[in-house]
Amino acid sequence: MTRAELFHQIQQKQSYLCVGLDADINRIPAHLHHHVDPVFEFNKQIIDATKDLCVAYKPNIAFYEALGAKGWESLQKTLDYIPDEHFTIADAKRGDIGNTSRLYAKAFFETLAFDSVTVAPYMGEDSVKPFLEFENKWVILLALTSNKGSQNFQMTIQEAEQPLYEKVMRTAQQWGSPEQLMFVVGATHPQKFEEIRAIAPDNFLLVPGIGAQGGDLEAVSQYGQNDHCGLLVNSSRGIIFAGTDETFADKARQAAGKVQEQMAAILSK
Amino acid sequence: MTRAELFHQIQQKQSYLCVGLDADINRIPAHLHHHVDPVFEFNKQIIDATKDLCVAYKPNIAFYEALGAKGWESLQKTLDYIPDEHFTIADAKRGDIGNTSRLYAKAFFETLAFDSVTVAPYMGEDSVKPFLEFENKWVILLALTSNKGSQNFQMTIQEAEQPLYEKVMRTAQQWGSPEQLMFVVGATHPQKFEEIRAIAPDNFLLVPGIGAQGGDLEAVSQYGQNDHCGLLVNSSRGIIFAGTDETFADKARQAAGKVQEQMAAILSK
Repeated sequence: MTRAELFHQIQQKQSYLCVGLDADINRIPAHLHHHVDPVFEFNKQIIDATKDLCVAYKPNIAFYEALGAKGWESLQKTLDYIPDEHFTIADAKRGDIGNTSRLYAKAFFETLAFDSVTVAPYMGEDSVKPFLEFENKWVILLALTSNKGSQNFQMTIQEAEQPLYEKVMRTAQQWGSPEQLMFVVGATHPQKFEEIRAIAPDNFLLVPGIGAQGGDLEAVSQYGQNDHCGLLVNSSRGIIFAGTDETFADKARQAAGKVQEQMAAILSK
Repeated sequence: MTRAELFHQIQQKQSYLCVGLDADINRIPAHLHHHVDPVFEFNKQIIDATKDLCVAYKPNIAFYEALGAKGWESLQKTLDYIPDEHFTIADAKRGDIGNTSRLYAKAFFETLAFDSVTVAPYMGEDSVKPFLEFENKWVILLALTSNKGSQNFQMTIQEAEQPLYEKVMRTAQQWGSPEQLMFVVGATHPQKFEEIRAIAPDNFLLVPGIGAQGGDLEAVSQYGQNDHCGLLVNSSRGIIFAGTDETFADKARQAAGKVQEQMAAILSK
């Protein structure tokens, strides 16, 4: 999917919502456990209930990997089930030496056919570039993450007075264009979005941290939007576990609908 | 496995060799492809040929993930086949927000029962700690990696004149003890080992980068050893792909034997 196509989807749906398919087997409603593949059944119903309200789906790979081979089958089926017009994100946070990153890229872009994958920057250029070599595929690089641990290293000041996450964003823009490179910036740092937009005016930002983690959609949107919207705001637990019983899909739809309404109001400004 | 038990294995075998099971399906000898599970068959023969010469095995998870669900089955079978006295390393380079890291930890420590997993530090404390909460399991944290990209961020100078990798090593020692925390330090930076030993005197170092990447075992060992040996030196391609035909297991044994002899000589000094 190109940047223009993604923007088109956002305009059509009046939404820049990404639904995180973190289908934790321990939190899936009990009545689904008699299905052959409860994780896929859960995702299927979540997708049916939310697909007109969101433009992207983001399974966090940990929740599938924790189930071993069976988890990978659930992931494959989930990906096949997501409609083509949705942007798909493998939230995998991978990154390794060149020949190994190439294999990870192959796993997510070819074996599984995701549109994008999240990548950790710590190992530098040759760990990120192999992911950028796939046509029409995206790298979403960790910049300033939503968790408390983002203080430990991402915020530490480097030479030239810049924190590490800024250096990551400036450096990575030499590796790939805004047509193939996004950044993860957590909604828990709303005061940083103005600065971040100055560093990366054209890149889409994948923004986790609203919902369960407490980030503020209004603040993020005010400073984070660009002329292509430029935001994919993710909510996982706040949507998919809004309900815990037979009504979970309806509850998820209500929760997603609330966010989408807020987004429509913001986009119409 | 405890640090004392690992040291005992090293003394018994006169080896601190770790064999990297990077069983790239495209490089496995042709005659193995008629097996139901060529990757497992390859690993099985490599393990049979090298198990008395090494103390650890390290499958890089990328090579398995690239094959989807089938790859996870090969990985599980390989892990089951590795003798109990060997230290096992899931080279996965994971790291995510707390609840997600917990799932990854579960995947590698419980579903797959590895002794250790490599973890990326970029997301900080709450992304690493969940891995440290498993008894008798190890975190191997990326510090200074063997690839060229280690220059991009790991080497950048922080406040207090220290490069980022040093800050990572100093900070992480507040999170876990040398009984549960190792660091990855690439053999391609031999001049750094003396400094690194001063920063982390007791931690084992997992050292990739000899063999195909050109690092020097003598230099690494001279400055990197401590009173528990303190080194696990990995070779992947240099051993497992030493041969490319029916004789591959013998060739792997010869290559591993050469490294082990060098190690025995170093240990006897």
